[in-house]
Amino acid sequence: MNAERIEVRAGSPGEAGSAVWIGRGLLESAASLLFSPSGRFLLISAPAARAAADVLRGALAGRLILDLTIDDREEAKTLDGVARIADAALAAGLRRDDALVAVGGGVTTDVAGFAAAVLLRGVAWNAVPSTTAAMADAAVGGKTGVNHPLGKNLLGAFHPPRAILVDPAALATLPERDYRSGLVEGFKAAWIADAPLAERAERALSLLLAREEEALLDLVAGAVRVKAGIVSSDPKEEGRRRLLNFGHTLGHAFEAAGGYRDLRHGEAVAWGIAAALEISRDRAGLSNEEAARVREVLARLGPFPQPRRDPALLAPYLARDKKATASGRAGILLEAIGRARVEEAIPEEAWLAAAARGQI
Amino acid sequence: MNAERIEVRAGSPGEAGSAVWIGRGLLESAASLLFSPSGRFLLISAPAARAAADVLRGALAGRLILDLTIDDREEAKTLDGVARIADAALAAGLRRDDALVAVGGGVTTDVAGFAAAVLLRGVAWNAVPSTTAAMADAAVGGKTGVNHPLGKNLLGAFHPPRAILVDPAALATLPERDYRSGLVEGFKAAWIADAPLAERAERALSLLLAREEEALLDLVAGAVRVKAGIVSSDPKEEGRRRLLNFGHTLGHAFEAAGGYRDLRHGEAVAWGIAAALEISRDRAGLSNEEAARVREVLARLGPFPQPRRDPALLAPYLARDKKATASGRAGILLEAIGRARVEEAIPEEAWLAAAARGQI
Repeated sequence: MNAERIEVRAGSPGEAGSAVWIGRGLLESAASLLFSPSGRFLLISAPAARAAADVLRGALAGRLILDLTIDDREEAKTLDGVARIADAALAAGLRRDDALVAVGGGVTTDVAGFAAAVLLRGVAWNAVPSTTAAMADAAVGGKTGVNHPLGKNLLGAFHPPRAILVDPAALATLPERDYRSGLVEGFKAAWIADAPLAERAERALSLLLAREEEALLDLVAGAVRVKAGIVSSDPKEEGRRRLLNFGHTLGHAFEAAGGYRDLRHGEAVAWGIAAALEISRDRAGLSNEEAARVREVLARLGPFPQPRRDPALLAPYLARDKKATASGRAGILLEAIGRARVEEAIPEEAWLAAAARGQI
Repeated sequence: MNAERIEVRAGSPGEAGSAVWIGRGLLESAASLLFSPSGRFLLISAPAARAAADVLRGALAGRLILDLTIDDREEAKTLDGVARIADAALAAGLRRDDALVAVGGGVTTDVAGFAAAVLLRGVAWNAVPSTTAAMADAAVGGKTGVNHPLGKNLLGAFHPPRAILVDPAALATLPERDYRSGLVEGFKAAWIADAPLAERAERALSLLLAREEEALLDLVAGAVRVKAGIVSSDPKEEGRRRLLNFGHTLGHAFEAAGGYRDLRHGEAVAWGIAAALEISRDRAGLSNEEAARVREVLARLGPFPQPRRDPALLAPYLARDKKATASGRAGILLEAIGRARVEEAIPEEAWLAAAARGQI
């Protein structure tokens, strides 16, 4: 085991943050890396993460008081999904000093993390992401939550996992489409805050697509470092953390307009980034050359299914974006590769025009 | 308006605490006392709190984006109840800078506060308690939550209301049984930490029972001061805060064993205190005289319906108490009136024997 450890600070000085472990072979060492005050764990896993869950079952033998496989489709990311985990955890005799372990993609970590946040008013949890999207983004940063008929992630809590294990072995059975679309979140982190990382990952793109582990660990660790830095400085998303939403304002609208079926999250974000590039050229001075570099990466990670761009369809989802406040809908613009900023009030027409225009 | 203001500090230095306002005529000044970053409010009220809600409707005229009356029976204190508030709030266009106002008893503040905790990962809320129990206890301290078939308050969050308005006018239509049983929580606070308050309230018991406002405000303000002091020193219930659970370990079991119908919360706590007095005499040196004084107050607040004391019925609820950890079930014992302590591991047999024995 040769692991890097990255700390993510939590909301407030008294609160516990996350330790992100990144390296090969971590799953086997889960017993010493995962956190549980009582030493007891409740395993919550996605069906597709079975290989990783099996390794954990071995590593945590005798310490599991629950072994629950959940429906991890986006449609199951609901308050009912949280209730099902809560039911099972309480029936298993969960105590305040026990801890959950969520093994899967972003849906699994979001739902299980939310369950941990509300069970007994909060128990500890750990995340073992089994998708590129969850490794680079979803599992880090403390946001948990579920969808609502009116929009994505409208219910949730800030409740960071105590430990996050990023082991490429967990990706072994990840379908190609998920592997590739998840890398969008890794690149996103580089584009908003780490130009050298973006350049390295661009050069390594063929290796990344071939699932070469060194290249993957470099991008994921870089993305986690970017996210850890930003989240630690603004855990509750009152300012700088919004930078991480680059591509997500329209991304969420595209995803919702596709009924959460047509597009993977990373694919919707890719289209959201393509649209944000248009607004960034108009309003933040992003050069045509750098916009083209970003699009080139997205094209090689794809091809992605086209989103539905109909303004009448997208507008209601944009209006419900939870970053909207009385002063308007903030957007994240790229000034250059490695440098983004928040623009507080971008008019709806600009969003919808960019949604119609953005190409990959 | 002649109000006292008591601050309750929150979990962590960065987090917002609660300002508790106590006095006559506060409801009319709600617009200046309740907190909302946007100035917009969502009113969530219990049917029985209609008089208080009506005053608030006037005081907040033009600033309400939702006016929702909820089912506030203990049976409706469920995750579904939270979902119904969330549905209505999101449909009303809730934004992150809006705030909820919960008007009612403990069920209303617990459910609406929990909804505020998870809506958009947390929006601000305010509490306007309309029962003695909620004034003296439920609305203060940041605990929100709902029941689960396996036990009370098993799902929830720590999410303090930003402002709490304690105005005796809100009690105008409170039924006698609720008024009296709610005072148990006020006395409980005095018994665990404030001997002079306990003495004053004992002497004023006839006035309290006659709903004399000065006597009531003295007891409620004293109870809030006790709770504020304890909660501020231990917001997440890791140590000293457990003192507030005096009478609640068995109280919750009695309440559950009665299907949350037979006993009011305060009544179940009264029986829980009667049992805890037995254990306190055995293990904490509580004198017979002081135990008798406590019982005398409880008797005058009653008579309360008898609880079900069958050990076979109570044991499973005790086992699920969420303060149980691997090291046993902690209990709160009274050493003397005004002084309580936590005993870490009290055997189940001792609990069940006291449950059978405790008289009022």
